[in-house]
Amino acid sequence: MNTLKNQLETLQSLQLNSHGRDFLLTWEKSADDIRALTLVAECLSELHRAGKPFRVYDTGLAISIFRDNSTRTRFSFASAANALGLGLVDLDEEKSQIAHGETVRETANMISFMAEVIGIRDDMYLGEGNKYMREVSAAVQEGFELGVLHRRPSIINLQCDIDHPTQAMADLVHLKQHFGSLEALRGKKIAMSWAYSPSYGKPLSVPQGIIGLMTRFGMNVTLAHPEGYDLIPDVVTLAREQSADSGGRFEVVSSMEDAFRDADVVYPKSWAPYSVMQRRTPLLRQGDRAGLKALEQECLANNARFKDWECDEKKMRLTRQGAALYMHCLPADISGVSCAQGEVAAGVFEKHRIATYREASFKPFVIAAMILLSRVKDVAGLLRKLARD
Amino acid sequence: MNTLKNQLETLQSLQLNSHGRDFLLTWEKSADDIRALTLVAECLSELHRAGKPFRVYDTGLAISIFRDNSTRTRFSFASAANALGLGLVDLDEEKSQIAHGETVRETANMISFMAEVIGIRDDMYLGEGNKYMREVSAAVQEGFELGVLHRRPSIINLQCDIDHPTQAMADLVHLKQHFGSLEALRGKKIAMSWAYSPSYGKPLSVPQGIIGLMTRFGMNVTLAHPEGYDLIPDVVTLAREQSADSGGRFEVVSSMEDAFRDADVVYPKSWAPYSVMQRRTPLLRQGDRAGLKALEQECLANNARFKDWECDEKKMRLTRQGAALYMHCLPADISGVSCAQGEVAAGVFEKHRIATYREASFKPFVIAAMILLSRVKDVAGLLRKLARD
Amino acid sequence: MNTLKNQLETLQSLQLNSHGRDFLLTWEKSADDIRALTLVAECLSELHRAGKPFRVYDTGLAISIFRDNSTRTRFSFASAANALGLGLVDLDEEKSQIAHGETVRETANMISFMAEVIGIRDDMYLGEGNKYMREVSAAVQEGFELGVLHRRPSIINLQCDIDHPTQAMADLVHLKQHFGSLEALRGKKIAMSWAYSPSYGKPLSVPQGIIGLMTRFGMNVTLAHPEGYDLIPDVVTLAREQSADSGGRFEVVSSMEDAFRDADVVYPKSWAPYSVMQRRTPLLRQGDRAGLKALEQECLANNARFKDWECDEKKMRLTRQGAALYMHCLPADISGVSCAQGEVAAGVFEKHRIATYREASFKPFVIAAMILLSRVKDVAGLLRKLARD
Repeated sequence: MNTLKNQLETLQSLQLNSHGRDFLLTWEKSADDIRALTLVAECLSELHRAGKPFRVYDTGLAISIFRDNSTRTRFSFASAANALGLGLVDLDEEKSQIAHGETVRETANMISFMAEVIGIRDDMYLGEGNKYMREVSAAVQEGFELGVLHRRPSIINLQCDIDHPTQAMADLVHLKQHFGSLEALRGKKIAMSWAYSPSYGKPLSVPQGIIGLMTRFGMNVTLAHPEGYDLIPDVVTLAREQSADSGGRFEVVSSMEDAFRDADVVYPKSWAPYSVMQRRTPLLRQGDRAGLKALEQECLANNARFKDWECDEKKMRLTRQGAALYMHCLPADISGVSCAQGEVAAGVFEKHRIATYREASFKPFVIAAMILLSRVKDVAGLLRKLARD
Repeated sequence: MNTLKNQLETLQSLQLNSHGRDFLLTWEKSADDIRALTLVAECLSELHRAGKPFRVYDTGLAISIFRDNSTRTRFSFASAANALGLGLVDLDEEKSQIAHGETVRETANMISFMAEVIGIRDDMYLGEGNKYMREVSAAVQEGFELGVLHRRPSIINLQCDIDHPTQAMADLVHLKQHFGSLEALRGKKIAMSWAYSPSYGKPLSVPQGIIGLMTRFGMNVTLAHPEGYDLIPDVVTLAREQSADSGGRFEVVSSMEDAFRDADVVYPKSWAPYSVMQRRTPLLRQGDRAGLKALEQECLANNARFKDWECDEKKMRLTRQGAALYMHCLPADISGVSCAQGEVAAGVFEKHRIATYREASFKPFVIAAMILLSRVKDVAGLLRKLARD
Repeated sequence: MNTLKNQLETLQSLQLNSHGRDFLLTWEKSADDIRALTLVAECLSELHRAGKPFRVYDTGLAISIFRDNSTRTRFSFASAANALGLGLVDLDEEKSQIAHGETVRETANMISFMAEVIGIRDDMYLGEGNKYMREVSAAVQEGFELGVLHRRPSIINLQCDIDHPTQAMADLVHLKQHFGSLEALRGKKIAMSWAYSPSYGKPLSVPQGIIGLMTRFGMNVTLAHPEGYDLIPDVVTLAREQSADSGGRFEVVSSMEDAFRDADVVYPKSWAPYSVMQRRTPLLRQGDRAGLKALEQECLANNARFKDWECDEKKMRLTRQGAALYMHCLPADISGVSCAQGEVAAGVFEKHRIATYREASFKPFVIAAMILLSRVKDVAGLLRKLARD
């Protein structure tokens, strides 16, 4: 790992384009912006470890909008906001008047008079989550340009239907620390594999986020899933193109074993098929309980055909020297622990449990880094000052 | 608009009586206190625009009690508290033991050991909301006098059955900025008009707040509503008396067109008739769903007789030079947008939309100003210092 | 009362063992640690009264986990966190994914990346609450030792099935202030008595907390309850042993009158029998509504046999000079006020009402003191500095 001094020198050498920008999809960010984000997150983590606070705001609000349940992302966002000196206010839409016909653009301005950042999770409806974030973004842009808002808050995607950038970036920092550098990822094989789960309707954003980010660093990215469990086609196409550009490899296979063979990293994780999510969205919107129940039954029955897609000891032995890094966004469906049979065997998970905690530990620092890079012009200078104090 | 220097000189010339006092009804405040509140709110807004924080507390709590839904007032209160350095804690009565027989006076003290301010919204029950605020006020006064509380928190009315002072004061600041000064309001005609809405049970506090405040500045205030849609009689009487004292005019008419004719400002907004609110209160208290449903049907049927009470282009053309300032506390019921037919035509609303956002934007600063004037003795000196830093 | 200078000298003379430790049961703490806690709480209260902030954190989180309703403890924890400079984040388990199979140890780490303290209320299930706290404690200890957490947050018991240490400690500070010193408690008689309530299922933690703490100061502790309303046997045994060690007296009687006779302090408070709580736990866990209803009926019928266990004027006259200090953790079931007949007569409660508020007022300062003693090595030095500023 670089020393702080080296990290800051690297940071200063990058061409950044994050200031004043939202963070909605990792692939909208330049390679330098991604690299900067890992550096800033690592520096903030080191400052925190050393007991050096990195408060940069005296007052100001961080607004969160959670349109789906969340524990770890909620706490990560709260932690990042607090560490920077921002007060957290959650827009709980059940409590608000949004249900009574307020338009998104109006609400976006009403909550933003003193906001510096708005974090949004909206991952339930395919085709909706990222779109909603862009509506909020356009609304505060209009409010700012027309003088309603004194400052334009930055929007941060805390998981949508397409990407989960705070997770994928935390995963990238984890990989960077595990292998020593972003350069060291070149040629490493990562298996992003579907895994069996006795639940259904899990978002596609994690696997999409992984193939959408890791294909940029020359990695050999293998996406594995049973037939029918496709991701959004556009994201797969993007991953393929990025992989070619970065000098890596990208392939899609239909066997967990094939994916795991000689892998340096495995990421076994369940998700719902793209086509099911497409059918689910109108049912959810119409509140069609019978239709949803029928779809769930159909989907669970189909899932059950692939119970052998479990990350067990045997499959782990297929990986490079049987010692691949196991990754998961948590919580995992652990066979015999959180369900009868699930994504991962209990023994495999337990062996890697603390490593998955460490993986998760980068998320608050990644979010804080996203906020800093969006709000502060000279982040390197700021970090230098914070490290000195 | 005055420069900051002029504003602070004016502020210092006023005889203030707000220190240590609650803010429960605008008409309990002297003209100087109201004027000071507009000045302080404007200064805080300018400080925020200039990126100068106005944190005055190191620690301390702002407690909110919302007995009805709210988005914008909730965020305005949170924003004001945060900007002043206070931590926000919401008393969520569903979570608390209040449902289990705690008396108001006990709870008021239990939540106040470190509180500087308590903001309350309680607007559902006619005859109850403002009364509840005074009970809380008396309870913390007793606790303070008997040594239980080290400081007596100030109570701020975030909307009750009688008044909505944070809204009315934000509206006044908006009018002041639109016309250039409070003096410039003299002789200007404001039409506070009922408007059709496909909902019922909307509080009376906004129209009452408007006629209870704007009649103090020599404005020509016209209250318009269909027969039967009266406000609380005492508030109408008060408005009439204040109008006479201030050299303005006050009249009640039964036609939106009459109200709009030559108006400089229009405020078309639906509300439930006073008599319906009176009948609704015991039904709500008894949880009489059938009775509430019957009353709603009756009331909606009656509303439907007045669908032409819509603020449309044609009526807007009746106003002074067809160019009246359109005001609304938001969210508005917009015909063809948030409902089939409502308070305002889509074209009219869209034309004035950003102006209504600006109107709303003063609320956090008004609330912060209420807190400062209640808690800090030399607010002018404080603002001078904040502006210098 | 000692002056601050004397208090700090006493504090510095104590052998403390609280740094880096959780606060789960008062009887796990040394006499010096308990004494220190009263001193620090009193100093913080005096600082607050004098308008001297005692913020010690720039940033950092205080996490709260409330597995049962709470108003006063929730606000006390929020107040303490805010006063020390910590941001409050509540883990609302309904909002989180905990219901979907997350293990305690995982969640404990996921919420703790920037946490300094975790306050937990878990008092519903006999045999579960304190155990859960220890699981959280072990989990963050593991996370810290294995490098996942940069710091190990301290766990504070905000009420469990066994003890209610923040309440008992606030009660002790109240007694100390009432009688002048901890030494003055020696030989004073305190009657911890069951009282009638028209509800059932009230936790045992308050009476257990009182007999588990007050027996350590040479007090004559009398526990009174009707036959069958036993507390957890182990806690009663512990109280008996502690009493012998401290040179006090401990007895269990089955009459409120016997307990009140010549008492210096009375603490009449309802609770559910230990045996009922034991039967209730599996029913709650199974969600057996019929079983719970039947148990409630049986228990209420049994309670009704003891309606004369009310703290009334007549019984108060039995106390020392008819002038015992009345204590209650609030809210009390007040006859004719919060219920037809309850724990205390309206006249008795009203006479002592403000004193019970004062009793409660120590809780935020007790919690802040618990946090300081656990997180800061030289608390005496810190307080000296804070008092000077």
